[in-house]
Amino acid sequence: MGCFKLNKHGGYYGKKNNVIDFSVNINPLGVSEKVLEKLKESLKNIVKYPEIDGLSARKKLAEKLGLDYKEIILGNGATELIYLFAKSIKAKKVIIIQPTFTEYKRAFKINGSKVYHFVTDKRDNFNIDITSLITKIKEVKPEVVIICNPNNPTGTFTEIERIIPVVNVLNEIGGFLFVDESFIDFTNEKSYLKLIYKYPIFIIRSMTKFFAVPGLRLGYGIGNKKIINRLNQYKEPWTLNSLSLDIIPTLLEDAEYIKMVEKWCNSQKEFLFSKLKDLDYIDVFPSKSNFYLCKLKKGNVNILKDKLLKRNIFIRTCEDFYALDDSFFRIAVKRESENMKLIEALKDMTLV
Amino acid sequence: MGCFKLNKHGGYYGKKNNVIDFSVNINPLGVSEKVLEKLKESLKNIVKYPEIDGLSARKKLAEKLGLDYKEIILGNGATELIYLFAKSIKAKKVIIIQPTFTEYKRAFKINGSKVYHFVTDKRDNFNIDITSLITKIKEVKPEVVIICNPNNPTGTFTEIERIIPVVNVLNEIGGFLFVDESFIDFTNEKSYLKLIYKYPIFIIRSMTKFFAVPGLRLGYGIGNKKIINRLNQYKEPWTLNSLSLDIIPTLLEDAEYIKMVEKWCNSQKEFLFSKLKDLDYIDVFPSKSNFYLCKLKKGNVNILKDKLLKRNIFIRTCEDFYALDDSFFRIAVKRESENMKLIEALKDMTLV
Repeated sequence: MGCFKLNKHGGYYGKKNNVIDFSVNINPLGVSEKVLEKLKESLKNIVKYPEIDGLSARKKLAEKLGLDYKEIILGNGATELIYLFAKSIKAKKVIIIQPTFTEYKRAFKINGSKVYHFVTDKRDNFNIDITSLITKIKEVKPEVVIICNPNNPTGTFTEIERIIPVVNVLNEIGGFLFVDESFIDFTNEKSYLKLIYKYPIFIIRSMTKFFAVPGLRLGYGIGNKKIINRLNQYKEPWTLNSLSLDIIPTLLEDAEYIKMVEKWCNSQKEFLFSKLKDLDYIDVFPSKSNFYLCKLKKGNVNILKDKLLKRNIFIRTCEDFYALDDSFFRIAVKRESENMKLIEALKDMTLV
Repeated sequence: MGCFKLNKHGGYYGKKNNVIDFSVNINPLGVSEKVLEKLKESLKNIVKYPEIDGLSARKKLAEKLGLDYKEIILGNGATELIYLFAKSIKAKKVIIIQPTFTEYKRAFKINGSKVYHFVTDKRDNFNIDITSLITKIKEVKPEVVIICNPNNPTGTFTEIERIIPVVNVLNEIGGFLFVDESFIDFTNEKSYLKLIYKYPIFIIRSMTKFFAVPGLRLGYGIGNKKIINRLNQYKEPWTLNSLSLDIIPTLLEDAEYIKMVEKWCNSQKEFLFSKLKDLDYIDVFPSKSNFYLCKLKKGNVNILKDKLLKRNIFIRTCEDFYALDDSFFRIAVKRESENMKLIEALKDMTLV
């Protein structure tokens, strides 16, 4: 019998109302009116089974991304695709670039993979030392290397030019690069998407973080036809509900909302970073994404968390992330007024 | 690389409008107004992650069923639970009572099980010969025996007294009985639920067929705490969307709608059966569920299917079911007027 305990995060679920939840990396601007209207209309379709292979939605996504629909697979959240990939590849050995999202490790362990960790250094702001990574890959010879880009919880981004030598080595040893681009829409950085034609790469993305609909569960994966076909061999039927399938075209075409989110993101990311930097008891790490990893210079973050919750502010402690400890916490970028409340509260705390 | 092709059913997805879809075993009365209203209200919750372990919904279900919430696990449709069980148990050998729903075989094969088939006889109306089944179990010594009850597509029901000798033998050899009760709400028969305390049994159920919400994806599993705990070790996080979780209490309390569905079911099942029996080119098998398996006395059912589709009627051909062939088809019980249209159309056909 295995022992793969379910991770316990996913937002504030306590008894208090009016808690500002800085623990979830979701766009805080709420659901677009256009999307809500379409969902209300789509409720009539729940009397039917969702399209079993989501073909219509895949075609729509393919058109938008400039891909063939056979290069796309849908997921009940990006999470389904992590588990599906792990199950389909059945890797003997994987390397996870750490610290990162905890589900990769669980998914691959459940499927019998031996997990190796490549740990980035906080003194380098968690940037990957590519030479060391390549050495590790040559030594371990894994079937899969996992990178989250931008990385959760550090916000680090690895540019396409820097990853090329890595995928070249993977190509030589017959391994895959598994790339989680769940947060790429919050950056101005370039995706690895076009690499799928030349390199063994599988990319997953979330549609619910940027569009603020995590309750719907909606993600997708991108890879060459061979890998997508392989994943489809193992995919469970009807995993996406009909509302998720129905809403894809509306999300993709909601230009006004997309612009609004980008505007918020560009201004509030900078604002929050500069304010966090001013706090003398915290180290904050630069991030390309919509959240910041912070470190208490002294003390245990759970005390800070409890104090903040008394002021209706909830933060994500990071002791469950590999290579982090109870001095680390993560803060999502929220609306201006909310960010200011957080900063005010943090200012009122002393070294905890 | 495996070759576990996705099954292609789940309703009519062709180009015609106004097709009456007799291929899906869904209550045809549509979604209750109360449910629709609650879902509209729940749309505001999609900005949050669904509760990761669905605890509130599990407690509500437990209360209704007279169980402990630790004896319940939720699924993104009952289908998730088939795959989750297969993945968690990792049986070397399973016996599937056939002909039945095709996903069991796919789920266990994907997870490396060797699949044995125990085939029921159409001359016995597909009732299980319990003595032969026990002989087969003693011979094969499987970790899992799979029964769908009432069975899809035959409608056969195996009463609790008849299954007791089977679970006794399974108890002796350390095997499980996996019971799919997805259609039990359409019968007046007794569930195996209370057996979970004495025997190694895991039961799955669908909430979407009776309540006509298959687009939402919503099912649950029942077992003793030990087996539920084991399944939770392997369960993926956030598989249920927030609308599915939110709607559970409303479904359970919708007494007026439940009564309406039961009334329709009791009257239309009998009506359709008697009319199907009158057709001289078809054999129809007795069913406890909301569908009937039929067999053409002569000819290929695909010709019949095409002819019926010209009259905007879609039926489920059954050649992909184990031990059935292209003379079999399945018909769901629909509303009176729809059932009459089907019967009229079938009357107009001659031996195909």
